[in-house]
Amino acid sequence: MTPAKILVAQGGGPTAVINQSLAGVVLEARRFSNVTRVYGAHHGVRGIVNEDLFDLTHETSHNLEMVAATPSSALGSTRDKPDAKYCQEIFEVLRAHEIGAFFYIGGNDSSDTVRIVSEEAKKANYPLRAIHIPKTIDNDLVGNDHTPGFPSAARFVAQAFAGANLDNAALPGVYIGVVMGRHAGFLTAASAACRNLPNDGPHLIYVPERTFEVEKFLSDVKATYDRLGRCVIAVSEGIHDASGAPIITKLAKQVEHDAHGNVQLSGTGALADLLCEEIKGKLGIKRVRGDTFGYLQRSFLGCVSDVDQHEAREVAEKAVQYAMWGDRDGSVAIKRTGNYAVNYELAPLETVAGKTRVMEDELLSSCGANVTEAFQAYLRPLLGSGLPDACHLRPNKVAKVLNKA
Amino acid sequence: MTPAKILVAQGGGPTAVINQSLAGVVLEARRFSNVTRVYGAHHGVRGIVNEDLFDLTHETSHNLEMVAATPSSALGSTRDKPDAKYCQEIFEVLRAHEIGAFFYIGGNDSSDTVRIVSEEAKKANYPLRAIHIPKTIDNDLVGNDHTPGFPSAARFVAQAFAGANLDNAALPGVYIGVVMGRHAGFLTAASAACRNLPNDGPHLIYVPERTFEVEKFLSDVKATYDRLGRCVIAVSEGIHDASGAPIITKLAKQVEHDAHGNVQLSGTGALADLLCEEIKGKLGIKRVRGDTFGYLQRSFLGCVSDVDQHEAREVAEKAVQYAMWGDRDGSVAIKRTGNYAVNYELAPLETVAGKTRVMEDELLSSCGANVTEAFQAYLRPLLGSGLPDACHLRPNKVAKVLNKA
Repeated sequence: MTPAKILVAQGGGPTAVINQSLAGVVLEARRFSNVTRVYGAHHGVRGIVNEDLFDLTHETSHNLEMVAATPSSALGSTRDKPDAKYCQEIFEVLRAHEIGAFFYIGGNDSSDTVRIVSEEAKKANYPLRAIHIPKTIDNDLVGNDHTPGFPSAARFVAQAFAGANLDNAALPGVYIGVVMGRHAGFLTAASAACRNLPNDGPHLIYVPERTFEVEKFLSDVKATYDRLGRCVIAVSEGIHDASGAPIITKLAKQVEHDAHGNVQLSGTGALADLLCEEIKGKLGIKRVRGDTFGYLQRSFLGCVSDVDQHEAREVAEKAVQYAMWGDRDGSVAIKRTGNYAVNYELAPLETVAGKTRVMEDELLSSCGANVTEAFQAYLRPLLGSGLPDACHLRPNKVAKVLNKA
Repeated sequence: MTPAKILVAQGGGPTAVINQSLAGVVLEARRFSNVTRVYGAHHGVRGIVNEDLFDLTHETSHNLEMVAATPSSALGSTRDKPDAKYCQEIFEVLRAHEIGAFFYIGGNDSSDTVRIVSEEAKKANYPLRAIHIPKTIDNDLVGNDHTPGFPSAARFVAQAFAGANLDNAALPGVYIGVVMGRHAGFLTAASAACRNLPNDGPHLIYVPERTFEVEKFLSDVKATYDRLGRCVIAVSEGIHDASGAPIITKLAKQVEHDAHGNVQLSGTGALADLLCEEIKGKLGIKRVRGDTFGYLQRSFLGCVSDVDQHEAREVAEKAVQYAMWGDRDGSVAIKRTGNYAVNYELAPLETVAGKTRVMEDELLSSCGANVTEAFQAYLRPLLGSGLPDACHLRPNKVAKVLNKA
């Protein structure tokens, strides 16, 4: 790269480690003498078209490290999904500010944005390096073993279900936890990670990769409840019927749609409440409780996988290196090379952009409501070190004296 | 105490540290040579009347320590609220198993149970030491500076709101988090603990100690949103109107009552969803999201205050010492003696039993939607060590070139 300014931005839903990638770009870029300025866009691509930019060149390394350890998107994010015209406006601003490299930290929509910007620059014969840095708690980027942000969210979900299982064992009933995931069930499946004893929950796991049938669900719940006197259930917000219609639309009186026509699934407890009503009404079980993990699972301060932190930093470092020493645009991809070790590659943007990965068949059990050992083996190293244990007393019954019962 | 068996049980909602108290009773009691057996009742007082008891005498110290570090009630809990007849049945089983000391870890209902059992023993001239060990995330036991379980739940709520505030800053809108608390707002107030910069949320905090007026609420939200372009709100599940009617009953089509006639407030997202609808409908704000923290706030594995852990252990140790060396029954109370230091006292059962503490006036700001510095000073030492920081980039704007906006 010839001497130039670089620009970094964050798009889509925040994660616990997206600021690791931000810090990674800034700190790595500042090591290159041909980088004259490091800019950050406020609220993603919208900040670019609005020329709402920050100069990060003189931000202290200490504060960058502190921000890196803080969840959510420090530069601000956006849900804007740029079309070709929007991308031209992005490019116009990049050109006006003489940006030589553009780094966009985001999911598959963001990779598509980078793809179009990259093409615009080529058309205009403008020397721009455009690199997509992966992040999404949904883990749904194709061509990646996993995506930064997913491991920490998975750790939150695993710890939440480990606690919910113990709570449900102490005060038995049915407990439903609704987890984020419109198309991919990876995060919901992570609910299984801390199961230890044979009767530990979640006992049932429902993901968008499988059709959700209410009758089958009720019969699964009844069977578990009859066997254990309790039942813990993990459900993806995106569960749908055979026609693809979200289960939530079947019962909510009012459903919100976003600019892309997507039904609002997060930020409401409606799905959990609906499923609880079904169980109370059809199975006659009295104590039925539903929680919707909502924004906690992606933004909770202080629940993070150290593996995720390091990888989110590394994908950004690699992005800068590909920009400085490489000769093509692309999307940084994580490849698993050992148990546990990874390597990074620069994938062509068109192989990632706008595509959605879902859980592979071998990760889901044939019963339709659980995960396989293969999934547990896949997930375990991602959760990082220091995962707390859920421990039980060893039962040792006292002989009855009164025998009244 | 003459040589005898002792019995410990856990009642009411689980906490992150209630097993610290369990381990404290067992480990401390086993140091006394006149303790012949340490029993635990399965599912609280119900386990006693059913003679469903475990012998903990030979549980390993290692496993007790592992269980102590695990949230929820390892012995199982119960929502049974014993009346005089039920307490007689408890006493009958204690007598049949020659129990010389009874320790009940629980909230104000549990202290009332201990009070009645203590009186039954006196009437029957049976030598029993009955001690109540405090726990409740609601922090609503009178005569205590605070109660074990509250600090860890408060830490969860503080970390959750710190993250939600950052998430809301990245993708602006209105965010409502509904926190447990039927009568006392301490836990909801803890949402303020990690605020750092002047515009950090939660910007509005509503607790049951103040009447909730929907019009006032909407005007508060509008004022904040107009000022900052976003708004983060903490709400107690127990907020009510001037007549004392829970706000949730004003909009839910179906409301569940428990055996004591209490409206079900937890395990449903209805209140958050209702308040979101009000804001969308009346203020015309589009991005409005509500989360209900539900069971996560009391059972999440791996979010705990070390101060809380140590105190939950200590109240149990003191309970055993009061039983072994003292001459009266009572409830162990935490008194603050420094900043930060505490001492323990044995309070008469009738001063605690069945009473409910709420937030003192000086802890709530006069605007009706915030906490005071006095509350922050009260809470801070309870949250324990290693509380993560929420850090921000220092803004440093780049001058515009295109100036199109």
